[in-house]
Amino acid sequence: MAVYTEVSSDELDAFIAAYDVGAALSFKGIAEGIENSNYLLRTEKGNFILTLYEKRVDAKDLPFFLGLLDHLAARGIACPVPVHGRDGAALRTLKNKPAALVTFLDGVWVRRPSAAHCAELGRALAQFHLAAADYPGTRANALGHQGWAPLAQACAPRADEVAAGLAGEILRETQDLTQNWPRALPQGVIHADLFPDNVFFIRDRLSGLIDFYFACNDALAYDVAVCLNAWCFETDGQFNITKARALIENYTKIRPLAQSEIDALPILARGAALRFLLTRLHDWLMPAPGAMVKPKNPLEYLTKLRFHREIAGPSAYGIV
Amino acid sequence: MAVYTEVSSDELDAFIAAYDVGAALSFKGIAEGIENSNYLLRTEKGNFILTLYEKRVDAKDLPFFLGLLDHLAARGIACPVPVHGRDGAALRTLKNKPAALVTFLDGVWVRRPSAAHCAELGRALAQFHLAAADYPGTRANALGHQGWAPLAQACAPRADEVAAGLAGEILRETQDLTQNWPRALPQGVIHADLFPDNVFFIRDRLSGLIDFYFACNDALAYDVAVCLNAWCFETDGQFNITKARALIENYTKIRPLAQSEIDALPILARGAALRFLLTRLHDWLMPAPGAMVKPKNPLEYLTKLRFHREIAGPSAYGIV
Repeated sequence: MAVYTEVSSDELDAFIAAYDVGAALSFKGIAEGIENSNYLLRTEKGNFILTLYEKRVDAKDLPFFLGLLDHLAARGIACPVPVHGRDGAALRTLKNKPAALVTFLDGVWVRRPSAAHCAELGRALAQFHLAAADYPGTRANALGHQGWAPLAQACAPRADEVAAGLAGEILRETQDLTQNWPRALPQGVIHADLFPDNVFFIRDRLSGLIDFYFACNDALAYDVAVCLNAWCFETDGQFNITKARALIENYTKIRPLAQSEIDALPILARGAALRFLLTRLHDWLMPAPGAMVKPKNPLEYLTKLRFHREIAGPSAYGIV
Repeated sequence: MAVYTEVSSDELDAFIAAYDVGAALSFKGIAEGIENSNYLLRTEKGNFILTLYEKRVDAKDLPFFLGLLDHLAARGIACPVPVHGRDGAALRTLKNKPAALVTFLDGVWVRRPSAAHCAELGRALAQFHLAAADYPGTRANALGHQGWAPLAQACAPRADEVAAGLAGEILRETQDLTQNWPRALPQGVIHADLFPDNVFFIRDRLSGLIDFYFACNDALAYDVAVCLNAWCFETDGQFNITKARALIENYTKIRPLAQSEIDALPILARGAALRFLLTRLHDWLMPAPGAMVKPKNPLEYLTKLRFHREIAGPSAYGIV
């Protein structure tokens, strides 16, 4: 939770003068967002989020992200919509940092999603995959399977500080998953980070998806696998097959999964668990200087990884 | 900037069910406020701020603060208005902490106030003093002149780490000001912390006052003295007499200052400077554990204190 870059009212007024949004009525830093500085801005024309992109986001990726939001919004996906200045540009500069204004999306995130929430998520994820199918931008998945070996090697020397034997386990998993990774699955633009805090609900209806700053091209079913990890385990580490079934069944109503995707789900889910285990372990052992966020416990994802490794097959996710 | 206590959507829904505000549409922690956890809440009925009072606020003072806001709002002062539950109570409990919902106040604070902003401030401060005159609640000023000696003694052993000779200077100032403090000035409810970040503007018109959590009974002119310190110095430490004149002239149009108050302004302003010097010095030398706020430089207030000590009289503030 953080605002890394402070913006004064004068700087704000000068910045929003480039848009047709009227005068600022309110401007407050939001205590959310690990990567960027986010402000809630109310103007005479409505509510917006102003984001200043800090150093963890690569500026050259921003046209991909903002263009994706434009593309999705034009196809009816509920997501933040970039506001374009009078000169047409959505990506601008504020305090010498890349910055953009997007529309404010109503909704709250749900800390303990129910099976009904997972059903809503499944539909929205498939709708997003279909809507993004003809997006012309491309971006490699920096945290995809090719990215795991360098992360595992960086963490291994100190991984046993976190749990005995962890170094060996992450190196073996990385090698095993990299060798056996399915490479022929249907590809597309994925969200890649669709955790509960990136999905908004109003009452029990999904109201939108946010935070597309890990979006990239990869196997579509990998996005389902990320969600199985992030939405379908209870806080005690138990996997909830009812939630998984709700997620997958409702996904397939909008975008049917190929048999190859169903067969690959256990290894994709194990890989997704390894990805979050490795990045959390890295942040845990080597916190970024100046980070205002408490690192998340990596071991939650070790438990999840082992679950996916040990199941008999996709039927463990409720697929019949 | 901080949210010290996390509130989930379920906890929020249970909390707001006690009010007639409809369902939650959005809920975001605000990266502002040193003392408390603040959330911006949008519901079907409007925009609100939800505050959880953390340990730096004394729970027994909360009825004074919330009652004051009710009182001010009933008299037309633009300030956050407590929302009362269906049972009539404004002060409630959330996550085992005292909590209250208040209306959201539009406006942005101004980092570099102009003389025109100071004029607006002067009028609003006087209107607040008049509106609060018949408020029945009372609260002693914990950081008034009786509070300075213990603070100075706590800081003195390490004050010279911050500036050579500072320990001697704060002890002498505390003794001198305590002995000569004016005790017969008109009293009332003061804000006591009316810094620019607690005063909102829309375009150049003042839209409201916030953060009454230092409000207390004290000399009304002391509030003017706090504002002279907080609004009328430039960032290079120079005093801006034009801003001071605008503030005081516009204050007196609404509530004329007695001659005793005008005569006392230099010592009141010097005392106000000492109060912020001491509290900033204390936070600088002894940061609160877990504080997510960078301590402010105390020496800014040493420069201000010396200015008020060395002037010939209230004419230095532009009073003719």
